[in-house]
Amino acid sequence: MAINVGDALFVLSNQAMLDLLPSHPAATVARAASILHDTCLDLTRGQFLDMSYEERQDLTVDDYWPMVGGKTAALLSACCHIGALLGGADEAKQEAYRSFGYELGLAFQVQDDILGIWGDEALTGKSAASDLVEGKNSLPVLYGLSQNGKFAARWKQGPIQPEEVKLVAQWLVDEGGYDHAQNEAERWTARAIQNLEAAQPMGEAGRTLTGLANKLLKRKQ
Amino acid sequence: MAINVGDALFVLSNQAMLDLLPSHPAATVARAASILHDTCLDLTRGQFLDMSYEERQDLTVDDYWPMVGGKTAALLSACCHIGALLGGADEAKQEAYRSFGYELGLAFQVQDDILGIWGDEALTGKSAASDLVEGKNSLPVLYGLSQNGKFAARWKQGPIQPEEVKLVAQWLVDEGGYDHAQNEAERWTARAIQNLEAAQPMGEAGRTLTGLANKLLKRKQ
Repeated sequence: MAINVGDALFVLSNQAMLDLLPSHPAATVARAASILHDTCLDLTRGQFLDMSYEERQDLTVDDYWPMVGGKTAALLSACCHIGALLGGADEAKQEAYRSFGYELGLAFQVQDDILGIWGDEALTGKSAASDLVEGKNSLPVLYGLSQNGKFAARWKQGPIQPEEVKLVAQWLVDEGGYDHAQNEAERWTARAIQNLEAAQPMGEAGRTLTGLANKLLKRKQ
Repeated sequence: MAINVGDALFVLSNQAMLDLLPSHPAATVARAASILHDTCLDLTRGQFLDMSYEERQDLTVDDYWPMVGGKTAALLSACCHIGALLGGADEAKQEAYRSFGYELGLAFQVQDDILGIWGDEALTGKSAASDLVEGKNSLPVLYGLSQNGKFAARWKQGPIQPEEVKLVAQWLVDEGGYDHAQNEAERWTARAIQNLEAAQPMGEAGRTLTGLANKLLKRKQ
């Protein structure tokens, strides 16, 4: 039932594109629909990678970016790009919004990875370090694996048990996994903010978007 | 993985619509895309009904048509309608093709129901009467239930076992389930052929379509 409802919602997004026709030029609507379609294909690629990565022990940090690029980042990028296009922004501003969305998505995802291991349970609402128990191929984990230290040796032995999570998470800090992810989050955050400033969001909507971005990029939960 | 690939194929169908833009007027492409989207929503409605009907004992023949109308029939109808639209047919011919596809779908589905209970195993490739064992709410079954005879009494007691399939299928013949379905198949076949003739399919494509329709409507497999 859930899959079927998802299919119906997917169709509604396409109908919403056609509903733009009376008030926008046909070429603009076609371009917006094309961005939506390309993004949806990207999402299936990201989902494919995510599923392909399960159970694999040979992944590196380089395998991480195509996967998250094809998930959170592709979706936020399309939202910002289509909004700019329909709002009448010129090519340069569209590109700034598109990049902003993409980089916001990457920064958000890396932060989510950090919180999934070292987050404050009271703030995130999910058990801290649950990503370690679930064996999720997050950025800190992939970096840790590349260090071939205590963390990598333990990870390759099989599922992390809840009672050893604190120790394993500390190994990952000691071996640089936390710092690497934190640096990447800051790098993408800086680029996202740079592109948002280049896009010069205006008026009430612009203030809301800037506020939302600041909230997402500095979030502790 | 299969669901994800299905999502990707769904997107490709939308991209194919946009690919029509260079060679067709934007209004025609928008109309074709709109037919596709409406049909996809119909398909999720049909799928919803199909799943909702599982395990239900209170269904009647009237519950059958919205379900099959939202599955095979909606899909074939859209194929014929969109083809006629893009081929430059006028409104009346588009409507004839649309109706032809819908009625072909209904006739095909009812025939499939008949073959699923009384089909020749050697021809259909699936075990005859397997629809009875699987508890499928096909047209003969829904008609049989309305007769409140031996068939209905047995059906309501729980799953039909393979060893009793021949007997239960014979009860369904005795109580009119076969004849009812056969009459419905013939009724929709006659209407489909009438609309196909009204559409006056032409040339090589027209001959192929007529040949396909004849093959589907008279099939024994």
